[in-house]
Amino acid sequence: MLFLVRMDVHLPTDMPPEQANEIKDREKTYSQPLQRDGRWRHIWRIVGEYSNFSLFDVSSNDELHGLLTGLPLFPYMDIAVTPLAHHPSDIT
Amino acid sequence: MLFLVRMDVHLPTDMPPEQANEIKDREKTYSQPLQRDGRWRHIWRIVGEYSNFSLFDVSSNDELHGLLTGLPLFPYMDIAVTPLAHHPSDIT
Amino acid sequence: MLFLVRMDVHLPTDMPPEQANEIKDREKTYSQPLQRDGRWRHIWRIVGEYSNFSLFDVSSNDELHGLLTGLPLFPYMDIAVTPLAHHPSDIT
Amino acid sequence: MLFLVRMDVHLPTDMPPEQANEIKDREKTYSQPLQRDGRWRHIWRIVGEYSNFSLFDVSSNDELHGLLTGLPLFPYMDIAVTPLAHHPSDIT
Amino acid sequence: MLFLVRMDVHLPTDMPPEQANEIKDREKTYSQPLQRDGRWRHIWRIVGEYSNFSLFDVSSNDELHGLLTGLPLFPYMDIAVTPLAHHPSDIT
Amino acid sequence: MLFLVRMDVHLPTDMPPEQANEIKDREKTYSQPLQRDGRWRHIWRIVGEYSNFSLFDVSSNDELHGLLTGLPLFPYMDIAVTPLAHHPSDIT
Amino acid sequence: MLFLVRMDVHLPTDMPPEQANEIKDREKTYSQPLQRDGRWRHIWRIVGEYSNFSLFDVSSNDELHGLLTGLPLFPYMDIAVTPLAHHPSDIT
Amino acid sequence: MLFLVRMDVHLPTDMPPEQANEIKDREKTYSQPLQRDGRWRHIWRIVGEYSNFSLFDVSSNDELHGLLTGLPLFPYMDIAVTPLAHHPSDIT
Amino acid sequence: MLFLVRMDVHLPTDMPPEQANEIKDREKTYSQPLQRDGRWRHIWRIVGEYSNFSLFDVSSNDELHGLLTGLPLFPYMDIAVTPLAHHPSDIT
Amino acid sequence: MLFLVRMDVHLPTDMPPEQANEIKDREKTYSQPLQRDGRWRHIWRIVGEYSNFSLFDVSSNDELHGLLTGLPLFPYMDIAVTPLAHHPSDIT
Repeated sequence: MLFLVRMDVHLPTDMPPEQANEIKDREKTYSQPLQRDGRWRHIWRIVGEYSNFSLFDVSSNDELHGLLTGLPLFPYMDIAVTPLAHHPSDIT
Repeated sequence: MLFLVRMDVHLPTDMPPEQANEIKDREKTYSQPLQRDGRWRHIWRIVGEYSNFSLFDVSSNDELHGLLTGLPLFPYMDIAVTPLAHHPSDIT
Repeated sequence: MLFLVRMDVHLPTDMPPEQANEIKDREKTYSQPLQRDGRWRHIWRIVGEYSNFSLFDVSSNDELHGLLTGLPLFPYMDIAVTPLAHHPSDIT
Repeated sequence: MLFLVRMDVHLPTDMPPEQANEIKDREKTYSQPLQRDGRWRHIWRIVGEYSNFSLFDVSSNDELHGLLTGLPLFPYMDIAVTPLAHHPSDIT
Repeated sequence: MLFLVRMDVHLPTDMPPEQANEIKDREKTYSQPLQRDGRWRHIWRIVGEYSNFSLFDVSSNDELHGLLTGLPLFPYMDIAVTPLAHHPSDIT
Repeated sequence: MLFLVRMDVHLPTDMPPEQANEIKDREKTYSQPLQRDGRWRHIWRIVGEYSNFSLFDVSSNDELHGLLTGLPLFPYMDIAVTPLAHHPSDIT
Repeated sequence: MLFLVRMDVHLPTDMPPEQANEIKDREKTYSQPLQRDGRWRHIWRIVGEYSNFSLFDVSSNDELHGLLTGLPLFPYMDIAVTPLAHHPSDIT
Repeated sequence: MLFLVRMDVHLPTDMPPEQANEIKDREKTYSQPLQRDGRWRHIWRIVGEYSNFSLFDVSSNDELHGLLTGLPLFPYMDIAVTPLAHHPSDIT
Repeated sequence: MLFLVRMDVHLPTDMPPEQANEIKDREKTYSQPLQRDGRWRHIWRIVGEYSNFSLFDVSSNDELHGLLTGLPLFPYMDIAVTPLAHHPSDIT
Repeated sequence: MLFLVRMDVHLPTDMPPEQANEIKDREKTYSQPLQRDGRWRHIWRIVGEYSNFSLFDVSSNDELHGLLTGLPLFPYMDIAVTPLAHHPSDIT
């Protein structure tokens, strides 16, 4: 079941760089197994913004919520979730 | 080069069904070769709305504009284009 | 899997009353088996508006999209879907 | 008398975790008798957000306001209240 | 129980004046007994707009919804309802 | 001359309670003679929010501005003023 | 007593030009005595829009409402009124 | 003196194609001498939309307003004007 | 050349009063010669807000930008500029 | 390939002036080779705001994202990117 997720990151500008880097490293580490097992199917940077659009493939709303709130950057992000369905023109 | 495109369709409620169907058929036909050659990489329905999110992979802004304005439903749609870049956490 | 759905109805003010009533009757008929089998768990009128908040319990995004686009009033509605998850304070 | 309430929580990102946990614990404790006596009939988490939709069943606007401002998280929340009425299609 | 209600009227500009006047007359007639029995406690015009703010005093959400949807201008209005509570600084 | 005024209070969450209470006490004290002499004709709490709708009856824009900027909570509020006129359906 | 008023005109694009011109002529005629007696102190066109900002000097909200609703273009305009007060830096 | 202008075109979907083409032809003809004499310095299509961003170089607000309201598409456009100034980092 | 300018002031609530007063004094001093030489033709307070609408008469966009960024309160203000043109109904 | 970029700068009002100046100097230095090699083709100040509109000419979305996130002011800016295409009326 697919969901498009937009994440906008707002780190405080006075956060020490080493702390910011530590969180970003954990974020990257956190995302990798999810990308590998197919649940985090795509992640794209939005040009010019500290934001991304991501495509998730999960089996329930609860699973998606668990994945998102587990993100190390979660306390610093605005997240918007759009549930997706099969499109009748889709040939895949 | 990737772009996320949101399309919201607003057909007049008094358009005769056969005319609406004829446009939708042409839309579907129009999209198929673009999906096959990889330029229209994804199309997803937004749940509960007559709208879609699509992912395009084109070589220029002009190419994308040409594809979108060629859509049979173009006169009836609001379209929003978001340019995408590689995300540093992307493992693909 | 729960979804909160807001529906805002915009019937053209020049639609003949018998046509409007016929659509509303079909809408009511359409909703009843869905309420009975538990997929349309709640429907509440928003005070002062021709709108409702509804709670759906379905097994997938695709199922929800199918139910919503099948509504006789679908062409006349703006619909917004919010996916819901279990809340940790919920005692039920 | 039913009201749909949306609550969005904005804890300062520099609040010490023990303080945040203490407030959340009090919030949970506060909500339980209200859920049990039927005034706080539902609470659902919004997927991907530190927010909830809740359904309250109270006998007056004043009672609802008292319940909401008594929430330990009240100073950290944006709250939006929508009064609900019986919907003519509701079969319950 | 008090509610502040904002009503914005949008009559089609091509509605024949006699039809518009007939609706407005019925609206006025409809409002008078409600003003007299205290349920429609105030009605004020918003300067420069075909809109009003009104104060209603009713015993339930359902009663208010019934009053509002019975307005002859209801099909031509956008209505927003705000539930009110006692204010601790109110000396009355 | 009537004005509807909406006030939304945003006290910093780290303001010491005694300071907050001192300001609120001064606010209450400030409002009482204005309520008594009829210039601050109504004040209602908005359910679920630290906000109010108030009705002022003053003889000029300058008088209203003076009353509002004199509020002890003024530096912490967003204020929106709507000028009101007599409504032709008003029977009072 | 001063008010800044923004007026945005939306004439239907299919209104016959002679009808549009007739309304605009009446609008111009209507405005001239008001400009001369000082109640409509300024009128400026907003660059690129069929809109204006105007400054009115009237003795009450009711007087302003009467002037604005008497405009021949009133049924085709969105109007927003901002009450103004003396500014302490104003040297006039 | 530079101004950035955004124009969004909304032709009625039921306008006969020959009429639409005739207006667009006049629009193109209208724009060419302005582009040649340097007052309409740039015109760019916004990808996916029937809209453009344009850069105008004129000697006054009145001149710009005259140019824009003379556009054959003016009755069908929403126009937003942003005045520009020299930027201190500009090396030209 | 006329411009309507809206300025909204947002002083930090924890700025020491003497610092705030010192900035406001410099603001007042700064504005006076501009008012006298006719470039800052009007300044009006917006009722209930720490904001003003001002009318500037300058010979270029660059001149206006220089005047506005020179304001002692500039770092604490949101400013919106609307270019104005002669209105055909203006009799002055 | 052209992109219109709007940048809004929000420096904290309590940042020491020497730190702000140091960042602005680096910003200026950063922009100069990009302006010279034609990738940052235009930069204009928005009148009355600490903001600019810029025109970039790059060969890909990724190149643009790299240029923008490299800006010394990037952590303090809101950036919005609009992809542009050739306009059929453009005579250049």
